[in-house]
Amino acid sequence: MNDPKDKAAGPVPKAVVGRLSLYLRELEYLRSQGLETTSSTHLGSRLGITDAQVRKDLTHFGQFGYPGVGYRCRELVDRIKRILGTDRIWPIAVVGVGNLGRALLGYHGFESQGFRIEAAFDVEPAKVGKHVEGIPIHHLSELEPVVRARGIRLAILAVPATAAQAVANLLAEVGIEGILNFAPLTITLPQNLSSVEVDLAIQMEQLTFAVVNREQKS
Amino acid sequence: MNDPKDKAAGPVPKAVVGRLSLYLRELEYLRSQGLETTSSTHLGSRLGITDAQVRKDLTHFGQFGYPGVGYRCRELVDRIKRILGTDRIWPIAVVGVGNLGRALLGYHGFESQGFRIEAAFDVEPAKVGKHVEGIPIHHLSELEPVVRARGIRLAILAVPATAAQAVANLLAEVGIEGILNFAPLTITLPQNLSSVEVDLAIQMEQLTFAVVNREQKS
Repeated sequence: MNDPKDKAAGPVPKAVVGRLSLYLRELEYLRSQGLETTSSTHLGSRLGITDAQVRKDLTHFGQFGYPGVGYRCRELVDRIKRILGTDRIWPIAVVGVGNLGRALLGYHGFESQGFRIEAAFDVEPAKVGKHVEGIPIHHLSELEPVVRARGIRLAILAVPATAAQAVANLLAEVGIEGILNFAPLTITLPQNLSSVEVDLAIQMEQLTFAVVNREQKS
Repeated sequence: MNDPKDKAAGPVPKAVVGRLSLYLRELEYLRSQGLETTSSTHLGSRLGITDAQVRKDLTHFGQFGYPGVGYRCRELVDRIKRILGTDRIWPIAVVGVGNLGRALLGYHGFESQGFRIEAAFDVEPAKVGKHVEGIPIHHLSELEPVVRARGIRLAILAVPATAAQAVANLLAEVGIEGILNFAPLTITLPQNLSSVEVDLAIQMEQLTFAVVNREQKS
């Protein structure tokens, strides 16, 4: 079932990948409303882009859609998930169980998209051996066996900035392939480790836009 | 200096606003590299969209760019900030000082974009009166006077789900205009309160995409 066309032929801009996530959210919503098909015009209009842009985004990954029908929602959901790699469950490690780490262990926005936090790591004796939100906290020295045993390939880096470089090196050594960061990365990324940064200010800017523009209308 | 054209003439899709933030990040990067002008082609190529789409996005807000010159980076930065409403400092309240609240009080990704967490609120006597990361924790009953005194219009809702509705109502009552949410909103949004949801799974999907596509190449 794994269509090789669902892999990108060349480099894909990060923003195109971000739009795939938005198409996926919209398609899942349409399916929940009972719709079986949709169009590039509809998907584009929800995202404020042209139908041509929607088709161009998808063309990076092969052929989609049917003449006179458009896209079959279920099929497009499945294919976008394959493209994004979320056609499977990804076990995740949280490294660092401070405030951010604890908040992430209690965050419920990951599960529905196939991400499952399986293990947490810290070095403080008072934390190691405990469970937070049902998730075991291991000592960082146990990283390699736990990561191997649980098939963990992704980690969320939630350690203090001063420890970030050493921990990133360690993550790469034990075979972790991608890390999610909440602080602008001030470390040198080890080879074979991908990184995505979370910029919460973008969401705050959407909020100020909404507030400022309501201000004007009222 | 406040050009009325920098306000949207009609409804603007949320994704267009998200792209303004990305244009802004890119323009700020270009300025840091010493570039004074850029083009819709360049801005678009970084985001994987056409130059026509960039121009269309900006057309919602007026006229931009100069024939034969393109966009002046500094001017476009200033105008996008006015459009987004980030041409000023926004004092913010964090409501709920649990793990998420504490993590946010220590988050350093807001300041550079004009957001400043000024006050936090909770109802637990053990927390009230303390400071976290230099930010005072007030009792929720002090919300109104503190919000008024500090000119706070935006809040980050970091309370347990069971308290979310009551707190959202209270925030609207004291004049808060926008809230940032980390959980899918299960509350009825009071009138005059805008909301933006943070979906961290989108960033995780960018990460799996990077990992899965590297997998294929190697």
